[in-house]
Amino acid sequence: MAQLNWGMIGGGEGSQIGPAHRLGALADGHFKLAAGALDHRADVGRAYAQRLGVAADRAYGDWREMLAGEKARADRVDLVTVATPNATHFEITKAFLEAGFHVLCEKPMTVTVEEGEEIVRIAAKTGKICAVNYCYSAYPMVRQARAMVRAGDIGRVRLVVTNFSHGHHGDATDADNPRVRWRYDPAMAGVSGQFADCGIHALHMASFVCDDQVEKLSADFASTIASRVLEDDAMVNFRMSKGTVGRLWTSSVAIGRQHGFDFQVFGETGGLRWASEQPNQLIYTPVGGRTQIIEKGEGGLYEEAKRLSRVAIAHPEGFPLAVANIYCELADAIRGTARDGLPTAADGARSMAAVHSAVASAKAGGAWVDARPPMFR
Amino acid sequence: MAQLNWGMIGGGEGSQIGPAHRLGALADGHFKLAAGALDHRADVGRAYAQRLGVAADRAYGDWREMLAGEKARADRVDLVTVATPNATHFEITKAFLEAGFHVLCEKPMTVTVEEGEEIVRIAAKTGKICAVNYCYSAYPMVRQARAMVRAGDIGRVRLVVTNFSHGHHGDATDADNPRVRWRYDPAMAGVSGQFADCGIHALHMASFVCDDQVEKLSADFASTIASRVLEDDAMVNFRMSKGTVGRLWTSSVAIGRQHGFDFQVFGETGGLRWASEQPNQLIYTPVGGRTQIIEKGEGGLYEEAKRLSRVAIAHPEGFPLAVANIYCELADAIRGTARDGLPTAADGARSMAAVHSAVASAKAGGAWVDARPPMFR
Amino acid sequence: MAQLNWGMIGGGEGSQIGPAHRLGALADGHFKLAAGALDHRADVGRAYAQRLGVAADRAYGDWREMLAGEKARADRVDLVTVATPNATHFEITKAFLEAGFHVLCEKPMTVTVEEGEEIVRIAAKTGKICAVNYCYSAYPMVRQARAMVRAGDIGRVRLVVTNFSHGHHGDATDADNPRVRWRYDPAMAGVSGQFADCGIHALHMASFVCDDQVEKLSADFASTIASRVLEDDAMVNFRMSKGTVGRLWTSSVAIGRQHGFDFQVFGETGGLRWASEQPNQLIYTPVGGRTQIIEKGEGGLYEEAKRLSRVAIAHPEGFPLAVANIYCELADAIRGTARDGLPTAADGARSMAAVHSAVASAKAGGAWVDARPPMFR
Amino acid sequence: MAQLNWGMIGGGEGSQIGPAHRLGALADGHFKLAAGALDHRADVGRAYAQRLGVAADRAYGDWREMLAGEKARADRVDLVTVATPNATHFEITKAFLEAGFHVLCEKPMTVTVEEGEEIVRIAAKTGKICAVNYCYSAYPMVRQARAMVRAGDIGRVRLVVTNFSHGHHGDATDADNPRVRWRYDPAMAGVSGQFADCGIHALHMASFVCDDQVEKLSADFASTIASRVLEDDAMVNFRMSKGTVGRLWTSSVAIGRQHGFDFQVFGETGGLRWASEQPNQLIYTPVGGRTQIIEKGEGGLYEEAKRLSRVAIAHPEGFPLAVANIYCELADAIRGTARDGLPTAADGARSMAAVHSAVASAKAGGAWVDARPPMFR
Repeated sequence: MAQLNWGMIGGGEGSQIGPAHRLGALADGHFKLAAGALDHRADVGRAYAQRLGVAADRAYGDWREMLAGEKARADRVDLVTVATPNATHFEITKAFLEAGFHVLCEKPMTVTVEEGEEIVRIAAKTGKICAVNYCYSAYPMVRQARAMVRAGDIGRVRLVVTNFSHGHHGDATDADNPRVRWRYDPAMAGVSGQFADCGIHALHMASFVCDDQVEKLSADFASTIASRVLEDDAMVNFRMSKGTVGRLWTSSVAIGRQHGFDFQVFGETGGLRWASEQPNQLIYTPVGGRTQIIEKGEGGLYEEAKRLSRVAIAHPEGFPLAVANIYCELADAIRGTARDGLPTAADGARSMAAVHSAVASAKAGGAWVDARPPMFR
Repeated sequence: MAQLNWGMIGGGEGSQIGPAHRLGALADGHFKLAAGALDHRADVGRAYAQRLGVAADRAYGDWREMLAGEKARADRVDLVTVATPNATHFEITKAFLEAGFHVLCEKPMTVTVEEGEEIVRIAAKTGKICAVNYCYSAYPMVRQARAMVRAGDIGRVRLVVTNFSHGHHGDATDADNPRVRWRYDPAMAGVSGQFADCGIHALHMASFVCDDQVEKLSADFASTIASRVLEDDAMVNFRMSKGTVGRLWTSSVAIGRQHGFDFQVFGETGGLRWASEQPNQLIYTPVGGRTQIIEKGEGGLYEEAKRLSRVAIAHPEGFPLAVANIYCELADAIRGTARDGLPTAADGARSMAAVHSAVASAKAGGAWVDARPPMFR
Repeated sequence: MAQLNWGMIGGGEGSQIGPAHRLGALADGHFKLAAGALDHRADVGRAYAQRLGVAADRAYGDWREMLAGEKARADRVDLVTVATPNATHFEITKAFLEAGFHVLCEKPMTVTVEEGEEIVRIAAKTGKICAVNYCYSAYPMVRQARAMVRAGDIGRVRLVVTNFSHGHHGDATDADNPRVRWRYDPAMAGVSGQFADCGIHALHMASFVCDDQVEKLSADFASTIASRVLEDDAMVNFRMSKGTVGRLWTSSVAIGRQHGFDFQVFGETGGLRWASEQPNQLIYTPVGGRTQIIEKGEGGLYEEAKRLSRVAIAHPEGFPLAVANIYCELADAIRGTARDGLPTAADGARSMAAVHSAVASAKAGGAWVDARPPMFR
Repeated sequence: MAQLNWGMIGGGEGSQIGPAHRLGALADGHFKLAAGALDHRADVGRAYAQRLGVAADRAYGDWREMLAGEKARADRVDLVTVATPNATHFEITKAFLEAGFHVLCEKPMTVTVEEGEEIVRIAAKTGKICAVNYCYSAYPMVRQARAMVRAGDIGRVRLVVTNFSHGHHGDATDADNPRVRWRYDPAMAGVSGQFADCGIHALHMASFVCDDQVEKLSADFASTIASRVLEDDAMVNFRMSKGTVGRLWTSSVAIGRQHGFDFQVFGETGGLRWASEQPNQLIYTPVGGRTQIIEKGEGGLYEEAKRLSRVAIAHPEGFPLAVANIYCELADAIRGTARDGLPTAADGARSMAAVHSAVASAKAGGAWVDARPPMFR
């Protein structure tokens, strides 16, 4: 099976997300890094790409140069990853899709709901894959949870509770730290802080595991540090299309929680629990029965959990390999084996609609509002 | 130190709460069971009381008989525990307070807010102790948490998150079980199901640990099992008088959670976490520092944590001894050493106001409403 | 059911074990404290006993006075607890048994194996109960484990692994602390330090849960702090009469372990795990199946687990109530309902034999030696 | 930085260890798979290598062919990984070292102690790197533990306790499973079963973290399933050169333990604990202080922990990336930046000596024996 050619935009030296994408793309041998426009400083980006093994003529100064260059090649890249600042995702993703490239876009896919819908339409029209990096959904045991829900193992889902809370922005004396400050500044982050940053991972997860979509929501936002305009703590109640009740808490001031992303799903005949800090176990309780620990790698897992795991039971696999699983799914999709769980532009558009709806609800004192993009109503 | 005389109303043979009260009252030797009206069937109650060592003339057939009998005695009981069905708490508590007895009332103290306020006024007027059994607040490590908050160890409190969720009413096929059904039937349980049953423990806990009071709230109630009129799942957002943001989730359909009562408190300089299933540890993280495990019994705890623990570090103490701690505080208070943490009629009244406010908010689509009893506005 | 009269020797004010025994004896209402010789200082002991509600004429100055006084009474105590310094256990236990009293003796029951065997013979001859306070065996979930083993739920037991390790004597600068020092001084503690102090709890637990007896052992002792003569860390390998392989580690220098007493039992068809810091859960894995959490209070537990629990599922019960369970069993036994799990003089004698055998083995470079008292060979 | 050329022997399609090595070598981009002799069936191996992207002329039929082919090339592989059946490790490793290749050998490096010593001598003579895949030692938090010990953060080490126990061979009805059976058959596995398979990982870990070497040991081996000749459960007590006491338990019949590899190190001023199923946390308790959770990725870690981690705090990294860390260290070493923690031939030789010593000790009833290879005495 020949390796696929992969190109990356953004994710330059010192970025946090770059290494995760490179490890994710390379780990299983599906992709080789063939082209890149890695830095907003053209020279720096070209040099870094070459240090990573990209040929000089494919180490580009910016994404437009890369688009032009790759379009002209017979061996053009099979997949482009967009890991640039949030405000640029829409423009770049649009351009590459329209030029016939498959794209993996970092979240949030766009800034507005309208842009989100436009990407959905472009992807449909061009027939190209547009994936969004909701990588947590690619953990094997998250896939197992979804498969169990789909198979009816816990009956109709009554309730889903999900949190994504950490305390890494809880130090008010750290308020000038530019890595933190921009997230709560509307000029840079848009309409929402913590909900747009982490909450949408949790909301996507709720939809993903329940195999359902959020219809309406009610939000309570708080800025617990005086200098912040945007929320650093949010609670969102929601309802899904099949009637499931949802609860979502997200916070960046929960000092002591390191990476508190978890979910609980409760159905008529059982409950499931998972936490991102122990991603290799899924906790299952049948109604009236004992709590059981389902282990990644055990016998009898559903196919989609089995497929995305590499090493034996109780040998932990972590976050970088969840990202790698997204790339495995992409490789399959590019090679023609469509996979069902890959997060796509529709998920990206739904997330943006939820962000704008939650902002509106919070401003209206928690009023219930439609959470769907107009195109999906 | 002479033992105090204790009387009990309700809590007869086979009741769930009776043994916890008896163990709580007897364990530390402060009280002896001197009188009782233990069952709504007079004969059964008299016989059971005598089997528990109560003299025949103080084994009463009902609470009115007990009130008359004890009032007439020189060695009248020092404390009466009211552990009867909820709807009778108000009448019995009122009568005993007015007759000059100290009372420990099971929660909920009353059915209406007005009754709650009346008990507060009677207790003030008579000078008698009226305690309410929010026993979780008497765990040593809960007291440690409160002492840390008061001492400023985590700075101003920004956020409190508390849950009381279990799955023991999650089996819809069990809907005819009378132990479960009445809780969701307005004719028997009043205006609220799960929030009134478990949620108010969590709300009291938030107030207790933050040393603050809830001012307003917004609620989302759900009945996830079709046959239920009252909610079996609720989310309540709230704000406290010092500005603290609050989040409270309570559920009885969270299959797999056994006794999921926990809290997290996040302040300017640190965070605290506690869970009732591991009650002997308090998890503390200073901002920018490492998470630490504070153990019941370790050196350097605050006095109020130290005082309510009996055995050495890491020898677990559990729920019955938390109830016993309430009795220890009552014994101290009766003997004249007022203790600061004992939950009182004011807490009972605040709980009823919160229940009625949450019901109103949920009906109004999550509108923010005042959560305080009128007398405390 | 009339209360039983209880007398206590030792356990005076400020002692660690006294409160646990009083709470244990009183909690369930089976016993009342009727007599006591609580302190080696006669006046102090008499005064303290009266403060605890003992009548003046039964507040004794020493155990001989108590023995004489109680023998002469028609309402003599039904049970005597011996909680004096270790070296005196034999003499006092012997005297009370021979005078026709039931006795609960703190561990270690004796200093020598010969004394242990003598107590066994006296108990047999007099027909009086001589229990030894291996209280951990009275936790409900320990009883559940034993019942499962007996019922064959894990098949023939291949392997038992048990630890009792803590770090509370790990501070060498604390070496002059008299509460610590005596334990490693042969003049005061006898032939063994940590193994005799904590290890025998673990060894009793292995026998108890496996429903079997230790036949032979091989020991490795270490004094990791230079000033100590006796061991503060020990490893003991053993074999039981039915062929089970055993491993036991005990330490008092395991800094960070608070009360690291746990066991694991592995049979042909399953494994069980329990830890004293989470005593209300028993972890069970059937061979080839998923790990399950068995909760105290869940439906379907074995009778002996059910009987020794007081409050509902997931309401934790802790160490003092395990001691109380020993008193419940004693009350039953005194009233004529013999219980099967109560630790007796035979267990006390076996412990002493194991201590002396382990000392001999460690001195002989780990040679395998018979671990049984001569009378049980 | 140019990529290094990597060759692999063994680890063909369907093998368990192959994917872990490929992911480990490729993940960080240091190596590309340039050559391979992946299967004992020449055709199958050649085909599979080409599917993995190896050029046809470097897809070899066996290791001898590969040795000849690569020796003749200017662009010969920089590193050879030996992942063949245990009995062949010595011969292949020896041959490639002598031909001037760097080698990473799977454990056990050899079958006999003499062979182990020979590899040590050859590596020294040729100046080539011979690493052994004790990959658990490359977890960031294991490196942090070692760095803390070296820095004196827990004082002189008194005691190390390490376990590697699982239950995956606990099903006696599975005895004919060839994946299990060979491990307990001397004809295929040599002198030791579980200790040679898993125990030596734990023994290496003890040495690694304590930065010390085992001098002598005493072993107790058991075959808990009748049909097994070699041990499936072992306890090894040991002493290290600086006086540290060691305890090591390893089992393959511990049903319910999935991958129970852990260590505890106790020094004069603190204790450390780590478990391979939660590899991203290190638990630290200073003497007299509170237990703290040290998180991978937190500020202030020692350089060698920081260096081997890729993603932010509380984003878990798992087993495959620990293997990848070995390849990072190898890449550094090959490029001339010697790293201190890489496990080498000396570790491999010490392991073989420990295995043979433990077998001898167990046969001699637990007698203490020298655990060192003659060359290191």
